[in-house]
This record gives sequence, C-alpha cells and structure tokens, in this order.
Amino acid sequence: MKKHFFVLFFLPFLGFAQTSEVYKVRDYRVKNEPVLLNHFKDFLQIPNIASDLPNILKNADWISNYMLSMGIGNVQLLSPVTPNKPPAVYGEVLTPGATETVVFYAHYDGQPVDSTKWVSGLHPFKPQLTNKSLVKDGKIISWDTIYSGIDPDWRIYARGASDDKAGVFTIINAYAALKALKLKPNVNIKFFFEGEEEAGSTHLSEIFNQYRTLLMGDMWVICDGPVHQSGGKQVVFGVRGDTHLELTVFGPKRPLHSGHYGNWIPNPAMELSRLLASMKNENGQVTVKGFYDDVKPLSGAEISAIDLVPGVEEQLKKELGVRKPESAGSLNSSLQLPSLNINGIQSAGVGKQSANVIPTKAVASIDLRLVLGNDWKRQQQKVIDHIELMGFHVLDDEPTDQDRMKYDKLCMVKRSDGYNAQKTSMDDPFAKRIVKAVNAAIGKSPILMPTLGGSLPLFIFEQQLNAHPVTLPIANHDNNQHAENENIRIGNIWDGLEIFASIMLLPK
Amino acid sequence: MKKHFFVLFFLPFLGFAQTSEVYKVRDYRVKNEPVLLNHFKDFLQIPNIASDLPNILKNADWISNYMLSMGIGNVQLLSPVTPNKPPAVYGEVLTPGATETVVFYAHYDGQPVDSTKWVSGLHPFKPQLTNKSLVKDGKIISWDTIYSGIDPDWRIYARGASDDKAGVFTIINAYAALKALKLKPNVNIKFFFEGEEEAGSTHLSEIFNQYRTLLMGDMWVICDGPVHQSGGKQVVFGVRGDTHLELTVFGPKRPLHSGHYGNWIPNPAMELSRLLASMKNENGQVTVKGFYDDVKPLSGAEISAIDLVPGVEEQLKKELGVRKPESAGSLNSSLQLPSLNINGIQSAGVGKQSANVIPTKAVASIDLRLVLGNDWKRQQQKVIDHIELMGFHVLDDEPTDQDRMKYDKLCMVKRSDGYNAQKTSMDDPFAKRIVKAVNAAIGKSPILMPTLGGSLPLFIFEQQLNAHPVTLPIANHDNNQHAENENIRIGNIWDGLEIFASIMLLPK
Repeated sequence: MKKHFFVLFFLPFLGFAQTSEVYKVRDYRVKNEPVLLNHFKDFLQIPNIASDLPNILKNADWISNYMLSMGIGNVQLLSPVTPNKPPAVYGEVLTPGATETVVFYAHYDGQPVDSTKWVSGLHPFKPQLTNKSLVKDGKIISWDTIYSGIDPDWRIYARGASDDKAGVFTIINAYAALKALKLKPNVNIKFFFEGEEEAGSTHLSEIFNQYRTLLMGDMWVICDGPVHQSGGKQVVFGVRGDTHLELTVFGPKRPLHSGHYGNWIPNPAMELSRLLASMKNENGQVTVKGFYDDVKPLSGAEISAIDLVPGVEEQLKKELGVRKPESAGSLNSSLQLPSLNINGIQSAGVGKQSANVIPTKAVASIDLRLVLGNDWKRQQQKVIDHIELMGFHVLDDEPTDQDRMKYDKLCMVKRSDGYNAQKTSMDDPFAKRIVKAVNAAIGKSPILMPTLGGSLPLFIFEQQLNAHPVTLPIANHDNNQHAENENIRIGNIWDGLEIFASIMLLPK
Repeated sequence: MKKHFFVLFFLPFLGFAQTSEVYKVRDYRVKNEPVLLNHFKDFLQIPNIASDLPNILKNADWISNYMLSMGIGNVQLLSPVTPNKPPAVYGEVLTPGATETVVFYAHYDGQPVDSTKWVSGLHPFKPQLTNKSLVKDGKIISWDTIYSGIDPDWRIYARGASDDKAGVFTIINAYAALKALKLKPNVNIKFFFEGEEEAGSTHLSEIFNQYRTLLMGDMWVICDGPVHQSGGKQVVFGVRGDTHLELTVFGPKRPLHSGHYGNWIPNPAMELSRLLASMKNENGQVTVKGFYDDVKPLSGAEISAIDLVPGVEEQLKKELGVRKPESAGSLNSSLQLPSLNINGIQSAGVGKQSANVIPTKAVASIDLRLVLGNDWKRQQQKVIDHIELMGFHVLDDEPTDQDRMKYDKLCMVKRSDGYNAQKTSMDDPFAKRIVKAVNAAIGKSPILMPTLGGSLPLFIFEQQLNAHPVTLPIANHDNNQHAENENIRIGNIWDGLEIFASIMLLPK
C-alpha cells in the first residue's frame, strides 16, 4: 500500500510530447527501484580518487562486470600508454541496421576527499540515504527504507554520488531498461567511462590516440555536471577549459616568534594576501594584464539562448546566503568569461592550531577557467607575468640560499596541466536531434546553454576525435560536488534514465 | 679521557669579573651534567599544552616533587579561582638574616603543537639529542652519548625545551647547586612557575589576587625568551603586550563548484586577502587608522641603550634567508613599535587537499603586539574599525540567514584576551643590582634591552603586585620557540645555571 502511495504521489507531471517508450522505461524503473539503488550503493562504496590506483581498478572492474551483466558487448579497459594510470572502461552495443553511432561519456573518479569535513554520520565511501537535503533539515534514514517506497526527493550522500558515478550508472541502466523492455535502439551505442577526470584528464589524450578507431562516433553525449538551478533540464553546448597554479610565497627559513621578529621580518601570509588581492578588484574583474584579451565573442544564437535561460539569481542568493554577487551581470553572462578563483589558502595554523609565529611560507591554490579563444598555457603565463610585475621572483622549485639572498620576494609557481574550452555549434544537426530526444523524454524544451561554467576535457574530444559533443547534466544543482557532503537527489537519477534511453532511441 | 677533553675544550673564556662562587657552580654542573640532562629529559616528556589539563597537572606535580627533592620549602600549587585551569607552582627558600626577596618566574606550559610538522625522527614530547642545530646539518644522536662527555653545542629538541621549561629547570637547579655547594644566598628566594603563559596567562591575575601576600618580593626576575641574536646575554627591562583577533570572512553557505559559480559568487579567500592586504603597506607600516597614535616615546636612556645593542641584521638576513626586511630601520628599533602579524591563514585546501571550490569561509589569525601607551582592547578595536571601514559587517558569531541577506560582506571577529606592554625603568636600583649579578656571572656587561619583542604578562605583575621585573632570557635565539622543532642549546642551560645562581647571591 505504502509503495503505491509514493509512486502515485511523486509521479511528475507528464508533458504531451513524452513518448510511449519513455512511459515504458518509467514503468520498468518503478518496478526496479530498490534493486537499482542497491546496485548504485555497491558502486559508491568503492573509493574513487584518481590517485588511488588499487581502488580505481576496483571501480573499473565493477563497471566492466556491471556492463557485461546488462548485455553490453566488447567490454574492455582502455589504459593509457603511461603505466599505472586509471583506465577508461569501454563497451558497445551494435544495433542491426543502424548507420549512426552515439558515444556516451561519464567519469567514475571523484574529487579528493577530507572525510573529517563531512557532517557527522556521513562518510565519502559509506553511502547514506536521507529524506531530503541535509541543509534543508533532512535526516539520515535507514537504507532498508527503500523497500517501502522511494521518494524521489530522497538523497544519497557519497563521493561520486552525483559527480559522476550517477552518470555512469544511469547510462548503463538506460540501455538495460531498453533491453529488458525489448525496445530496439535506433543507433549503435558506445560507452566510454573515464577514470581520471577529476585529476585533470591528464592521460585521456593518450587513450584517444591509441583507441581512435574504436571510439569513432557521430555524436558524443556527455553526462556530467548539474541541471540548471531552476531545476530545468539543460542541454549544454560547451564547457569552460581549466588549469591550475599553486603559488607559494616564502618567508624566513624557519618559523619565527612573532614577538621577537614581528615588524622586521616580512610575513609570507601578508605578502601572499597582497599578491592575491592585486589579481582581482572589488567588482570581480580580474586585473591581470590581458586576462580577457583573447576571449572569442559569443554568436548571435548564443546570446539569444542566454537571454532565454530562466533567471535564478534571486533564488541562488537566498539559497547560498550571498547578498552581493561578485559581478553585476547575470550568473550566465559571468560564466561566458574566463575566471580566476582561489581554491584554497594555507599558511601555518588558525584556531587551536594558531601559534605566535611568522610562518615560513604561504600557499594558495588557484583555479583558472577558460573560454573559447583562451589557451591554457597562455592564461597561466599571464598570471605568472603578473606575479613578476608585483615584484616577485618566480621559481619552479623551493628557493636556494642564493635565491633568497638575490631577490626581495620569492614565489614558487607550480603549473598543473590543463585544457582549453570547447563549444559545439548550436546549429549542429546532430545536436539538434539530441535536443529533440531530450524534449521527448521530459515533455518540454530543455534549457539550451552555450557553455557550462564547469570544465570537461571536451577540447581534446574535438581535437583528437573530431567530435562535437553535447553535455546532458542530470545531477541536482545543490549536490555539493567537489566538496564534502556530495549527494544526488534520487529523482534526478530516474530522470537521467529516461533521458538517456530517449537518446538511445534517437529520432531522425 | 673523552669527558675531560670536552670539558676543557668547551670551557668558555673566563672574564676577570667572574666570582669564585660562579666557578664553584660551574664545577658542580660539570660533575653532574648527565644527571641534570636526564632530569630535564623526564620533565620534557610530559606534554605541556595549557588546554590539556591532565598533563598540565602532571607537569605541576613533577615540578613540585623536583623542588621538594632539591630542598625548596613551602611548595604548593596556586590554582586560580576559575576551576580546571592550570595552577602555578610555588616554593620558597628563606635565608636567615636576609631582608630582601627575589622572586623567580618561568612558565612550564608550551605552545600548541602539530607533531606532523616536526622533522622526521622528532616528536614534541619525545626529547631527542642532536650534535648541533638540525638546520645546520646536525644529526640526532643517541641519548646515551651524554655519558661520554657533553658538548655545549649539542641541542635537545622538544616542545618547551627552550620556552620555557629550560627556565623552570635552570632556576631550580641554580638553587640546588648553591645548596649542594653550601653557598648561602644573600636574599630570600621565591619560585613561581606559571602553567598558562602560552594560552595568554588568562588566569594569572586571579592567582596574583588570591596569593598577593605570598608573592610579595623586592624584585621579580623573569626567565623567558631567547638571548640576543649576537649570542650575548641580555637583561631586558620590558616586554611588548599581546592580544589576538581571529577573523572569519564568509562566502556561500555551502562549498560551490568553482566552474559553475566562479566569477559570480564572491570568494571569501579573495575577500580575506584583500582585507589583510589593506592592513599593512609594502613598507611594513600598519595602515589601520590610529595604529601608532598612543605609542609612548622612548626615554633618553632607552634610546642610548638601543644604540649600544650589537647590530645583528646582516647575520640574521643570511641565517633566515630574508634579503629585504619589512621595515627600513634596525631590528631593535622595529620592536619598539606595535605590530600586526598574520599567525596563520586557512581556507579550504591546498596541495593534495585542493579541490575546485569556492570555499565557504576563510580564516586568519592575527597577533597584535603592543608597546607602552597602547591598550590591548583599544588596539583590537582599531583593527575592528578598519574591518568595518573596508565594508564588512562585523559579527561576534556565525552569520544568520538574516545577516547574510542584510550585508554585502561579513566578517566574524573573535577577540582573545590580552595584556598591555610593561617596562621597568632602566634606572631602577634593584634592576641595576641584577645587571651587576649577571656581570659577575658572565664576566662582562650584558646587553641592556629596553624591551623584548616578545610578550609576557608583566603588565599585571606591575599592576597587581607593584613589581618592576627584569627579564633574563637564556635560550639560544634560533630555538624555534612557538613552532615545530623547538630546541635548546645545552650550553645555554649551563649559562642559565650560573646566571641565576649569581642573582641568588645578589651583591648589594
């Protein structure tokens, strides 16, 4: 009885354009919800930090076995040439008579975790169920509650729950649903699940290079990132690029008593603060010389699309507790520009770890997002030039005694790898058909977004595979991805199943 | 044989003014070096963070028993009225016929520790012996090496080794030496060892209030801090005051993906950097309004004394690896001014803990040193006024949702307790006799320093006990006090024994 109550109560409004196939997929899901969630829980229990190779391989094995169990063929691990790096997991379904191929991408690795920061009762790799978002007074509920009917507003908390094991899981199960329902896909389907995305996709290029033929397809569909903050599903035509710099400003060679030396020995935390403050003004504009110079202007279609994106600024301000945004424009117009964000700062200790010292160094981790026209190495160099302009001698490594005696101010800069932005034209015919399939799944037109604020290495998809991918995020926007307490709303998993199944049935 | 070699080789140059009593104390020490170091090792093994009451009480017990074993009388713990706070340890020696009383002060608690920051092989509470400073290529040597002769350049690494268990230990043993040698002190001696100095001496005032009569004396001698960087012994006539502020700047209520929100949601690490940068200019001048306004000018005697302090700036620059000091003046002239120092900064993670987030908050711990004329609450307020001037709404606690919607920028300020600076006149007759006693111990005139850069709560000694203390630091200046790898040079312990014994034999 209880089960029926939930199912009826929470069935979303069904738009006219939804196809009978989507209804069938929904029926299949409703009948299998507890089984699906148990599978997902199994998957989430395997730690998935890209640098943790033994566990990454366990994830890859789990995915391989899961795909095989769902009848997906030619399952294999695609390892980069560089040894001991996360493999991608590949599989395929060839549809008799199909002339087109859609490749589905998601990644199974997650962001680094600091489990001490997760709220009490949660652990990144011990998935927990809650009756709603914990920041909205949700409570942890017993996993066994799934057998008495599942509310789509429930959430699962775990690293990777939304970013991006949900993608891997829903893509595989969208196919599993079609197969169980004996619904024949209209296209060949390829599955490509990366294991190193959160570590910068450093070896993806090697994999593409080696398996170029295997990975050829007419269309790539990327499942990553959150749905629009309005709750609306979105089809995204591009992503920002991304790269990082880690800056270390040096003070005295040993920590000094702040009393005996304070006022005379320079404080690296103060010097770093001054340096960072010089990079961005109060209006949110990056003041690094030439930072915006090579930005490619938006097309007319893109400008129109941005105008149609529902305004969520007031909702977000309230939800996030932020009265004044950094820039005066809309959220989406801000995301069309490159950004400079401080991911973290650390110098000596604060709170109970604070001591009366002049620290030996101060470190800041900086994230640079890029848009079309930017080159990641050039963008890094602009920031490095700025650091020099601010009077620092820039080093690749820790300073020697000679360096210390030669230069007034020292900053070590560690450059990460990176990748450029990518955009698929909003007029691309395949992209338009994907939009149609999403429309068929959700019963209305999705939001069309010229670029996601976040990053995916789609630049190299285009460069190496000549792919023009579109991105279909399914996670709730308040999923805490990249931070502690990552979570996915269960209803978003269900929606993902229907959307990906609809794309596999791709209309002409 | 080996022992004799060391002893002869490392005996310092003996100035003409040294008394026969000092020689006897030295002989006594030479005969007892291994025993003394083993006692000291026992003492250092007891963790001594003021907030760790069970261990603090173990330290107090150890000191009490040690004093009793050395024949010191009336040993007792002086606890503040506030329960569960570190007690001071008191003891006394009444000298028949003496009309004057000298009170010796040191503290047995130490700065907080982060044992992960100590170099490999060291642990804050597992004292280790090295053959010289580890930053000068010293190596850890077996403790048993002490039985084959002890080089005064050897060091002991442990929290409190120099700051300030060495003070407690040398004061007690200076008396023990006199007693063993049957040398009668010329004064009554009182011993007062505090257990909460590194936590701000928050309850010292309560102890002084309750035990005012017991603690009366003609002269207070404070043993804390390092000797002059030139290696010369110094008598210090004052200390800077000290207080702290902890600033927390708030960003979004939950950590946000830096891609999906970067450029639109303000970054608290950037806002904190901007705030801190606004507090001090490139020339090391604090730009907080009125920061230097109430500084009392130096006396003529103080200005002359500072002129006589040996210049150590070039030596320090090289040793500390700093080419350009923060201020153009000498180290000692810089210490005559109030200071603003960042003790630590923290926002999200760096290095391997770095993730692509806009952090929820950024925290800075700030240390304010004060000179004569400054009032610690007034000095705190100047900084808080500055924060408001920079556009922040200042809060005592975490912001509510209402606060977040009402103010553009939010900064929580936690004010610590504090105390003002203190100075004893360089013409004080008792102080002059102490200088004479030090002269007798070291065979030359010590450096006379109007103020130590560091802080001790001597202000309340003056206010509550009408005391005019002088400070006699014994630790090597490169002792890493207040940081990881704290250490004491063994020769500095030996020097301390002689100096304190000489003061106990105070000449008229």
